[in-house]
Amino acid sequence: MSLLTVGTVAFDNVETPFGKAENIIGGAATYISWAASYFTNNIQLVSIIGDDFPPAELGALERRGVDMAGLQIKEGEKSFFWAGKYHTDMNGRDTLDTQLNVLADFDPVLPPSFQDPQYVMLGNLTPTVQMRVIEQLTSTPKLIALDTMNFWMDIAMEDLKKVLKKIDVLIINDEEARQLSGEYSLVKASRIIKAMGPKFLVIKKGEHGALLFHGEDIFFAPALPLEEVFDPTGAGDTFAGGFMGYLAKTDNLSFENMKRAIIYGSAMASFCVEQFGTENMKNLDQDKINKRVQKFANLIKFQV
Amino acid sequence: MSLLTVGTVAFDNVETPFGKAENIIGGAATYISWAASYFTNNIQLVSIIGDDFPPAELGALERRGVDMAGLQIKEGEKSFFWAGKYHTDMNGRDTLDTQLNVLADFDPVLPPSFQDPQYVMLGNLTPTVQMRVIEQLTSTPKLIALDTMNFWMDIAMEDLKKVLKKIDVLIINDEEARQLSGEYSLVKASRIIKAMGPKFLVIKKGEHGALLFHGEDIFFAPALPLEEVFDPTGAGDTFAGGFMGYLAKTDNLSFENMKRAIIYGSAMASFCVEQFGTENMKNLDQDKINKRVQKFANLIKFQV
Repeated sequence: MSLLTVGTVAFDNVETPFGKAENIIGGAATYISWAASYFTNNIQLVSIIGDDFPPAELGALERRGVDMAGLQIKEGEKSFFWAGKYHTDMNGRDTLDTQLNVLADFDPVLPPSFQDPQYVMLGNLTPTVQMRVIEQLTSTPKLIALDTMNFWMDIAMEDLKKVLKKIDVLIINDEEARQLSGEYSLVKASRIIKAMGPKFLVIKKGEHGALLFHGEDIFFAPALPLEEVFDPTGAGDTFAGGFMGYLAKTDNLSFENMKRAIIYGSAMASFCVEQFGTENMKNLDQDKINKRVQKFANLIKFQV
Repeated sequence: MSLLTVGTVAFDNVETPFGKAENIIGGAATYISWAASYFTNNIQLVSIIGDDFPPAELGALERRGVDMAGLQIKEGEKSFFWAGKYHTDMNGRDTLDTQLNVLADFDPVLPPSFQDPQYVMLGNLTPTVQMRVIEQLTSTPKLIALDTMNFWMDIAMEDLKKVLKKIDVLIINDEEARQLSGEYSLVKASRIIKAMGPKFLVIKKGEHGALLFHGEDIFFAPALPLEEVFDPTGAGDTFAGGFMGYLAKTDNLSFENMKRAIIYGSAMASFCVEQFGTENMKNLDQDKINKRVQKFANLIKFQV
């Protein structure tokens, strides 16, 4: 099945307790596409970059089955740039610099071949940009998932609420779920958020795993205890990419299959954080992924 | 099998976002005994109280199979008292008052009938007091578990390291594991801590579940997402009591059975936090416990 993905394609400076990496390739759509590419080679990418972006990086994604017809390249302009520094505990981070550049007036345009995807992953962007993408769809996709952040809840809550009515799966972290719902208990928060539109809610808790809510059902996926978390940048997008890639591949929206998708997403995220940027995402294969998923199964296996 | 438990029997003042409770019954040995009593009626309690402790509370525990022959009652003195206030997120708390009272010069004395237990749970106390208990054992128990806290790491690390050499299972939280090992990664921390003595390490992560380490094996037990965490006081002791009670009942130290014990401990802790103090621990039965354990199994169940 086809997977339309919208999000940033960008440069990042990342500083962690383990080192520093400058001008590495990042952006939500980049991580989503890399992760999803291990499940489907029918990915449609919508984004915007300047003329400073290395063609080799785009070529690498194209060879993974990512269609770049929706990528706008602005001559004489610069790509989106983010610089951040992680705290010692790796859970918190400070943004050191954000340069919107081409993103400042990004108006996503879907080529005709992108207008009737089966699956849609809207990466974290202004809610109005996410809505613009939905408005260009000519048929109703099987599933639309959306990522957002507390920043948009602070400055564009009404726009966000409008787009929440149009989607099927909301993917956010625990802090964002609490802010969006005004409830500390994630069980209570999930009810309030589902009433805003999405039938499914995924709450990411970083090193503490992820929760999937649907109706009165709850599924919990652990995070793998790792020797080292080297660089958490992109882990959430990689999770979303693995999750949506798995759904696009299996084309099965039962709760049982959604649970598997969460585990595959978690497995992809566990690879992502083991290296700087997208480095580890380029060297995976089905065997490595299956072995990693088996580690998740073994980690929580018990018989009563 | 017999379970010897050593720890405080005390009064608590507890303030949470949901309310305030004054002079309620608390203490590590109280919570451990209540939780363990749903698995074995052969519990030996070693502790100390003043003459201010309500006999009805002791009688309730005795009716659950808790032998009080190791409980010292100091006439004219007061029981240990702790007052704390939980933060809105329930993960942090401030200690408002600590009155050691009888605990100040507690010298645990094991009656002859307590000197050869099969299972031993050493609740959080001065490491020298925990060692004094071990020294009075006339035979080697099948399993000794110990709880401790960062306070003892700050002021009595050498005493703590001595007692760690004598035990089989260390039960601490993630912050304590990091302090004890000097490693942030819990996987790395677990290796360092196991080299200090205990073959098994349990790391409690509160609302984020618990990890069991043994050799190169890792097991993760989730916490149940609850509507409300009403009062987290005693959750860790209740977890330990359920864990050790289940082991004393089943008398099986395979890793598979230790995993089940972690799940039963987690289930007991999930009941504990639903009410103030020990309130909820007094009204359980096997059916409620089995249903709760089934909820844990359902929460994480997936097929790949």
